[in-house]
Amino acid sequence: MQVKKTEVDERIERIKNHKGVKGLLIVNYRDDKDGGQSQPQFVRCTMPQGPEATNYGVKLASLARQARNLVRDLDPSNDLTFLRITCKKYEMMIAPDKDYFLIVIQCPSEEEAQ
Amino acid sequence: MQVKKTEVDERIERIKNHKGVKGLLIVNYRDDKDGGQSQPQFVRCTMPQGPEATNYGVKLASLARQARNLVRDLDPSNDLTFLRITCKKYEMMIAPDKDYFLIVIQCPSEEEAQ
Repeated sequence: MQVKKTEVDERIERIKNHKGVKGLLIVNYRDDKDGGQSQPQFVRCTMPQGPEATNYGVKLASLARQARNLVRDLDPSNDLTFLRITCKKYEMMIAPDKDYFLIVIQCPSEEEAQ
Repeated sequence: MQVKKTEVDERIERIKNHKGVKGLLIVNYRDDKDGGQSQPQFVRCTMPQGPEATNYGVKLASLARQARNLVRDLDPSNDLTFLRITCKKYEMMIAPDKDYFLIVIQCPSEEEAQ
């Protein structure tokens, strides 16, 4: 039974194949009942399964949640729409949704060399 | 005695007067001897002095330090070069230096309406 590729799959495929993209992760998280931070669950991951991918997902999701909390602390009517972490070697970009973070790790230099 | 405007002052003046810029802060911080987080000191601040400016400076410097630690945790040979926090209402941009963070808060929509 051939499962019809969803629109999400197609978008992920497009991002994943974009020049310079090292990895794409979709991390789901929900605050547990008593408001504590639940461990993020990996919904999609194009990086090889293992501690490195887990490390990226957990740490970046945690930083994005703190950025979101910071934005709301400063102005409760405001909200985080994008977080871009630029480093010497690559860029990490995080697009937040209600319960999800889409995380993309990309080497801009490779992209520009297109 | 007319103090000669330094190059730093001129740069700050240029950024400050850029369309859409709400505030510019230069925050200095040093880890104290036993590695604890010292309170950031404000070196420059174009926002009105008060709790709001302090809040922005302290929280953004703290997030930037965590972002820098995260980058180094993931890859000790890497380093944070820029952090961009995009929100519904405005953008907060942080350029890290060794002991300083240059923080600029800007409303892109006003900039585009130029």
